[in-house]
Amino acid sequence: MTASRRPTADRSIGQYLIQRLQDYGIRDVFGIPGDYVLAFYGELENSPINVVGCTREDCAGYAADAYARLNGMGAVCVTYCVGGLSVANSIAGAFAEKSPVVVISGSPGMNERTQGALLHHKVRDFRTQLEVFEKFTICAVELSDPLSAFAEIDRALDAADRYKRPVYIELPRDMVNVVPPMNHVYHGPSRQPNPEATAEAAAEVLQRMSKAEKPVILAGVEIHRFGLQDTLLELAESTSIPIAATILGKSVISEQHPLFVGLYEGAMGRPEVTEFVEQSDLILMLGTFLTDINLGVFTANLDPNRCVLATSESLRISYHHYHDVPLSHFLKTLTDMKPLTCHREVPPSLRRRAAAEEVELQRDSPLHTSRMMSRINRRLDAETVVITDVGDCLFAATELVTHDRGEFLSPAYYTSMGFGVPAGLGAAVARADHRILVLVGDGAFQMTGQELSTLIRVGGSPIVIVLDNHGYGTERYLHPGDWEYNEIQPWAYHRMVEVYGGGKGALVQTEGEFEDALEAAWDDRSQPHVIQCKLAEDDASETLRVLADRMGKNVT
Amino acid sequence: MTASRRPTADRSIGQYLIQRLQDYGIRDVFGIPGDYVLAFYGELENSPINVVGCTREDCAGYAADAYARLNGMGAVCVTYCVGGLSVANSIAGAFAEKSPVVVISGSPGMNERTQGALLHHKVRDFRTQLEVFEKFTICAVELSDPLSAFAEIDRALDAADRYKRPVYIELPRDMVNVVPPMNHVYHGPSRQPNPEATAEAAAEVLQRMSKAEKPVILAGVEIHRFGLQDTLLELAESTSIPIAATILGKSVISEQHPLFVGLYEGAMGRPEVTEFVEQSDLILMLGTFLTDINLGVFTANLDPNRCVLATSESLRISYHHYHDVPLSHFLKTLTDMKPLTCHREVPPSLRRRAAAEEVELQRDSPLHTSRMMSRINRRLDAETVVITDVGDCLFAATELVTHDRGEFLSPAYYTSMGFGVPAGLGAAVARADHRILVLVGDGAFQMTGQELSTLIRVGGSPIVIVLDNHGYGTERYLHPGDWEYNEIQPWAYHRMVEVYGGGKGALVQTEGEFEDALEAAWDDRSQPHVIQCKLAEDDASETLRVLADRMGKNVT
Repeated sequence: MTASRRPTADRSIGQYLIQRLQDYGIRDVFGIPGDYVLAFYGELENSPINVVGCTREDCAGYAADAYARLNGMGAVCVTYCVGGLSVANSIAGAFAEKSPVVVISGSPGMNERTQGALLHHKVRDFRTQLEVFEKFTICAVELSDPLSAFAEIDRALDAADRYKRPVYIELPRDMVNVVPPMNHVYHGPSRQPNPEATAEAAAEVLQRMSKAEKPVILAGVEIHRFGLQDTLLELAESTSIPIAATILGKSVISEQHPLFVGLYEGAMGRPEVTEFVEQSDLILMLGTFLTDINLGVFTANLDPNRCVLATSESLRISYHHYHDVPLSHFLKTLTDMKPLTCHREVPPSLRRRAAAEEVELQRDSPLHTSRMMSRINRRLDAETVVITDVGDCLFAATELVTHDRGEFLSPAYYTSMGFGVPAGLGAAVARADHRILVLVGDGAFQMTGQELSTLIRVGGSPIVIVLDNHGYGTERYLHPGDWEYNEIQPWAYHRMVEVYGGGKGALVQTEGEFEDALEAAWDDRSQPHVIQCKLAEDDASETLRVLADRMGKNVT
Repeated sequence: MTASRRPTADRSIGQYLIQRLQDYGIRDVFGIPGDYVLAFYGELENSPINVVGCTREDCAGYAADAYARLNGMGAVCVTYCVGGLSVANSIAGAFAEKSPVVVISGSPGMNERTQGALLHHKVRDFRTQLEVFEKFTICAVELSDPLSAFAEIDRALDAADRYKRPVYIELPRDMVNVVPPMNHVYHGPSRQPNPEATAEAAAEVLQRMSKAEKPVILAGVEIHRFGLQDTLLELAESTSIPIAATILGKSVISEQHPLFVGLYEGAMGRPEVTEFVEQSDLILMLGTFLTDINLGVFTANLDPNRCVLATSESLRISYHHYHDVPLSHFLKTLTDMKPLTCHREVPPSLRRRAAAEEVELQRDSPLHTSRMMSRINRRLDAETVVITDVGDCLFAATELVTHDRGEFLSPAYYTSMGFGVPAGLGAAVARADHRILVLVGDGAFQMTGQELSTLIRVGGSPIVIVLDNHGYGTERYLHPGDWEYNEIQPWAYHRMVEVYGGGKGALVQTEGEFEDALEAAWDDRSQPHVIQCKLAEDDASETLRVLADRMGKNVT
């Protein structure tokens, strides 16, 4: 916040909001205009911020979420109710998975509200939308008072930055151009970590580390959200502690790193990894979410006695808790204390598996998801951002091996179908120099695939791989039986580029065809590519087979 | 509720819910399955109810809304949070416009909730989704207790029926197959109208009618929602009182009826109609919403002293109110009293305008929206259901002349973009024997046009007319200037049928081409038709020009 001492005289509420967004590194805003937010859209268009118009509001929400994950903060700007309530699901997902998205919504002007009649788009009363967003944002404010508007903007953005959760800012349309009659200075966030508690907690962990014989780090997604990858590596390398990651935390460390042992998924994952983690006498869970999918539907067998669980919200060692010791503060303090621990060898079986295993191409064989992942692995590099939607593309993608500084984004906890393609847009805007690879099922593509049109519009050359098994494949595993509700209309996904106006499509059914299409796409950075992969209806990755077996028991 | 005395022994909660939905005439349910609702989907698929799988949840919500408007009640069934929160906007629209949609959402089983970790799809706590839906449903229940589940189902469905608003029913997945250990009898709705208040109110209006010299009826959308069209006609015809309608109430009476004088829209509408209504000395506002668009952005000049405003929620005569006198009860009581009033002539200028005016075809002229409406008018008949999205297709469609029993559906108050195509699906399912005509803008089609794929899947021969002016045309009028944010990616809308797998598309730019495509589509009932109409960017109906002039003042 270098510019915190700027004078605010003559600055309108709309202009101050735009300035503060830029302070947090936001260069692009996603959204759809509508009459209650047109005045602010005008301000945006006249500002240095780039406005990315999307096809639908929920897509704009997903794009802003992916942008926030890669950029540190993102923003979506919509109109009242018809726009705001349409991003409810994407923002709930950003809340659940800790992605700092700023939702800016226009609303009826304060002066219009006194007329007693119903203004269009209004649902019940003027506070309905704000009250809805209070349910899944960490801070929700309405800029209805010029005297508090600047402070409210500061408060909301501080909260987004501190908790890496979405915040909601409602801007009545007649307040956009109001210049508050005072000068305002931003003083930085108010809440601070507790240094005594931090010192005591770090000293305790230091001692536990010095006694441990089989320590392990279980890295979670917050390492990524708070930009702690380098600190984590420093801690691990200086102590030679091996690292496992959760699905949601995949790519917080290069999976080719010699200390990386694999993804830990309880009884769902590879037995060698599960055994290695669960046999540890000290498990440093850093930024890890305790979710059902992360923990293999609760098959994880982690004795709390041997665990240190540090997140942005709480720090738990064995059965006791420290307050006001956030993850980043704790991790940096601990690392600076240069802890020592005994050297734990990474078994060769885990070291070898961490690198990509190549399968031999069988050109005429029908496609199989896991074998496709292996072929994709050959082309992945540090400049690739991999994005998965939910379903088997998520599970299969755990078999991809990410590279240093390569990124992997997925909605692995909230698992909202339709995340993939719009998140690809967000990633393409945040990382224009990277290659975007989207893995998406046919059902998910039917939900939000139209955002490919915006990907075409903004340029770049994303590769979208549609895993087409003619319906909701994961559910076929979860609820066995010949259920019609899992069938969907078959689309010519590879031809969407023709109607959306740009890019190249391919339809493939064999390993050879897939290989050719993948190679052609990867070598062509001039346009977007869609590869529609026809799969057998019962095709599934090994991870899905194991998961479905486990989760199916809860369905009926 | 003929089946109210059925024994419930051996009936599970899921089965009772399905039985009660059928009692209210629900034969089809829209939605998308997901793991928290698969068990109930299994029950649905094994029941007489037809499940219509959609591409997206919000589309399913719009479809259920349109189905409810035509059928009396509709239902949408989705999974927890990723599904439920995705219908937030469509259900808020149904609430705002009084459409009785039953939202059924699966949720985590009661037995899973005790494990302390985060279950996938969960946002904040297990009540988050219920609390969100309390904001825009008239009744929200959770079927977590077998002893109260049946009564809670009854209560929710009664509320939907009484208020014509959406209700929310949350069904934990481990409760679907639970058989409550008791017998349950449905006793009908508990709240009843007040007969004394009704008698007094009707007597007062009777007297006002007997004295009136220039009475008029202003018919609103609730006449349609409560199925009061015949009662309204009886009242009007027995007294010869002329009838005007609001936009939202368009089609509650055949616009070819001799007593129909036109749409009343304040200063926005045709001056003759405005004058006729505002000069009345008694204005019977029956089922009318006091919204900004209905009232021409508050240009309506209606003296409350001369108004009777009767809706399902309140009855106001001049400046006093009667409680517990719902619209249907009041209207029937009043009509049965056979009121008399002086005969008020419908001026010839209004009588003539109510019928369709034909414009002469200019085959080589570029398309103009209002002239297209005139050509469509020639083909409209009593078997057509017209559905409009928002923007100029809504405003232009006010120029269409509906027929007896023809239907006109639009989101004229909540004005949620993307309503059109999915509502077309709901209408096609509710009225398989009718012709469905959807008018939709290009921006709206990009939001939810994929539901055309489900329209193809369910058969039928809807005609979808895409008014393609390359962007958000209404906003160009509301916020003049060369704003980039109104531009959208140009799609080949007429070719969507190719990728969705069925139907016929046409691209037209002149009146002659439009005429040929329209005639060909109307004569072919074997498949869906999409007609993409290329319009000049500044094309607009007269209604939009007037409206934008009025609303634009509030934007900046």
